[in-house]
Amino acid sequence: MPISRDDCLGLDAADPLASLRQRFLLPPDVIYLDGNSLGALPSATPARLSQVIERDWGDGLIRSWNEAGWIDAPRRVGAKIARLIGADDDEVICADSTSINLFKALACALRLQSRANPSRRVILTERGNFPTDLYIAQGLIDLSAGGHQLLSVDAAELPAALAAHRDLVAVLMLTHVNYQTGAMHDLNALTAQAHAAGALTVWDFAHSAGAVPLDFNGAGVDFAVGCGYKYLNGGPGAPAYVAVARRHLDALGADPFAQPLAGWLGHRAPFAFDAGYAPAEGIGRFTAGTPSILALAALDCGVDTVLEAGVYALRRKSVSLSELMIALVDQCCAGLGLELASPRDCTVRGSQVCYRYALAGPAMQALIAARPRAAIGDFRTPDILRFGLAPLYLSHADIWDAVEILRATLAGMAPPAVPQESAPRCR
Amino acid sequence: MPISRDDCLGLDAADPLASLRQRFLLPPDVIYLDGNSLGALPSATPARLSQVIERDWGDGLIRSWNEAGWIDAPRRVGAKIARLIGADDDEVICADSTSINLFKALACALRLQSRANPSRRVILTERGNFPTDLYIAQGLIDLSAGGHQLLSVDAAELPAALAAHRDLVAVLMLTHVNYQTGAMHDLNALTAQAHAAGALTVWDFAHSAGAVPLDFNGAGVDFAVGCGYKYLNGGPGAPAYVAVARRHLDALGADPFAQPLAGWLGHRAPFAFDAGYAPAEGIGRFTAGTPSILALAALDCGVDTVLEAGVYALRRKSVSLSELMIALVDQCCAGLGLELASPRDCTVRGSQVCYRYALAGPAMQALIAARPRAAIGDFRTPDILRFGLAPLYLSHADIWDAVEILRATLAGMAPPAVPQESAPRCR
Repeated sequence: MPISRDDCLGLDAADPLASLRQRFLLPPDVIYLDGNSLGALPSATPARLSQVIERDWGDGLIRSWNEAGWIDAPRRVGAKIARLIGADDDEVICADSTSINLFKALACALRLQSRANPSRRVILTERGNFPTDLYIAQGLIDLSAGGHQLLSVDAAELPAALAAHRDLVAVLMLTHVNYQTGAMHDLNALTAQAHAAGALTVWDFAHSAGAVPLDFNGAGVDFAVGCGYKYLNGGPGAPAYVAVARRHLDALGADPFAQPLAGWLGHRAPFAFDAGYAPAEGIGRFTAGTPSILALAALDCGVDTVLEAGVYALRRKSVSLSELMIALVDQCCAGLGLELASPRDCTVRGSQVCYRYALAGPAMQALIAARPRAAIGDFRTPDILRFGLAPLYLSHADIWDAVEILRATLAGMAPPAVPQESAPRCR
Repeated sequence: MPISRDDCLGLDAADPLASLRQRFLLPPDVIYLDGNSLGALPSATPARLSQVIERDWGDGLIRSWNEAGWIDAPRRVGAKIARLIGADDDEVICADSTSINLFKALACALRLQSRANPSRRVILTERGNFPTDLYIAQGLIDLSAGGHQLLSVDAAELPAALAAHRDLVAVLMLTHVNYQTGAMHDLNALTAQAHAAGALTVWDFAHSAGAVPLDFNGAGVDFAVGCGYKYLNGGPGAPAYVAVARRHLDALGADPFAQPLAGWLGHRAPFAFDAGYAPAEGIGRFTAGTPSILALAALDCGVDTVLEAGVYALRRKSVSLSELMIALVDQCCAGLGLELASPRDCTVRGSQVCYRYALAGPAMQALIAARPRAAIGDFRTPDILRFGLAPLYLSHADIWDAVEILRATLAGMAPPAVPQESAPRCR
């Protein structure tokens, strides 16, 4: 029996997270399927930012570094994010961008390996990893001039590559959920395989945290980075975070420049203004310069929305939404030229559903221009329609409506692949 | 004849910038002498941030990267800052923190030298430079493992050091105005001396831009960095900027990782998501990850306040304020144990006035706690009372009142150095 819109409304009525939609300010004429690119605005954020700007900055001025707790904000927000990714409170700090944090984490991992295993000089990654991760690795390799190399293989070949190069791989660097397809790696298994091969792991949680439960310590992950502006709803260009296992924080201790972006805020005593660098204990050395307090306050509000829901409940709803979307596209869009690019198996799929479509660019433009309601997703070159399913603020009825907009848009764009009268319809 | 408060009111009446005080929201019970640590809140900022948050982020969502011009914000705000520092519009970009930008600039300068003059491996700097600048240089040297070394000499010895090591110095790295004393280097002369010795220059304008005119191109500066949250009034932890002379942008062109923090936003075609890094033309490659749009919007408002005044008018007023402060302290605080730590000659002094005082820490606490009006400056270890004189929002009467608070505070703290009845008073 085909799925009806009433079925979707029934799922929404039973959704324990349904009321959290009210925690966000979303325009009524949009179905927002791009929370994996830029999360929606939490309704608490405008007032919080006004307070930080007018009371803490305007009235408190420089005093707010202590009196409003600005100086602790990177650790405080980091500790909240730690709860989303299975790390301890003092293993995560907010600072800089994901790119910069990846540079720090990768440099540390290579430094640790260079002490014990200097012949390990390969950074193994996945072909199709998010480009900035590849670029940052390339830039670090070029600068450090230690003869390292970046080796990219297909995802399915990662275990074999680890085994084949078991004395050469220094670091396995992966993005947990692929930005383009939503394919999700097995964090625990790959981390264990990397360790078995003597490699350290640097994971990018940008497309996972806030939508997929992560067990940083349970999996034994060494380093992770992630982004504040996707599922964490921290606002455009929100600060990123870096997580470092305590065993490595301890091991890095004596080496002042193991984390090479040594800024004043990562110093053990930043207000002593010593001429020599002595890193802060623990995760503190992973800050560099002064962080944006406005941006951190917005991120704090965003993270709160995720904590309120809980990551396991979010994952259950995310799977429910993505299973529904795939089923509805199967039901309603057959013959329109869509090919599922995401895994059909939800256990290896993140919180997004992607389709290949020959005219994906113009199609996404048309979806964004659709009236009375737009369905906003992303086009990713060359032919990907990407739909992020943020479980905090999307309903099952939204998915129904979005698929209907998708169907109508594609049916109107291209010569129908089947005669019009027999084309499937949602309703 | 001693200076009277009426004299100060007379100076304010003739001050062409006096009305700009209204562009800021400052608490009435504070005389704010710390704009060189955190600039005051421009009155335009709260509404601008509300608009960016509620309209651009909340309603526009991902569309605002194009429709609200977010993607151009780093260049757009950078072009405004260019006008403050004498650079061309397309030589400056806002991104990251001062520390991170210094890492980029220094890495580029060393790369340029390594091509032509690989034996030049000294980074020459001033003893007492801002610590983060020293740390960043140390971290870069450690990571790149190219046998570079950081050489710190007293400011007065810089020309001699350049001459003595003329075949060895790769980079002269200096902060234009010293954070602790306000002593200001001769930008033109030192840049010329560095070039004569075959060295490139990397200047830190953190304590200059917005209060002191800078002539990046007139002086032939190679690279500069600076901070958005001091005289530019961009808010706590505002984004920083980096300026690169066009001749170097051209020369770096073919070398993808000359700027080693190679993030996706610095790519020539960020939305092509290529696996290989190809840097953007010009200054674009000096961005790395995604910048905070909220923080950039606040910085934009702050920079507008400086542009409205004009840097030459700001400098004239800044000199007037600092000359007044020194004269009033001479007049009113003799015998209280203050020793001027800033140059007496205004031509080599930035926009701050600093004193050595034996109990500087408790004294600054007492100044901040003073009622009915506090005088907020900074304590800098070990014995510096630092007063930043932001000419945009301070009046001459403010300086009079601040010196009176300083006198009364110090007179109340320590055993008076002269009998009470003959102690000098402001009024």
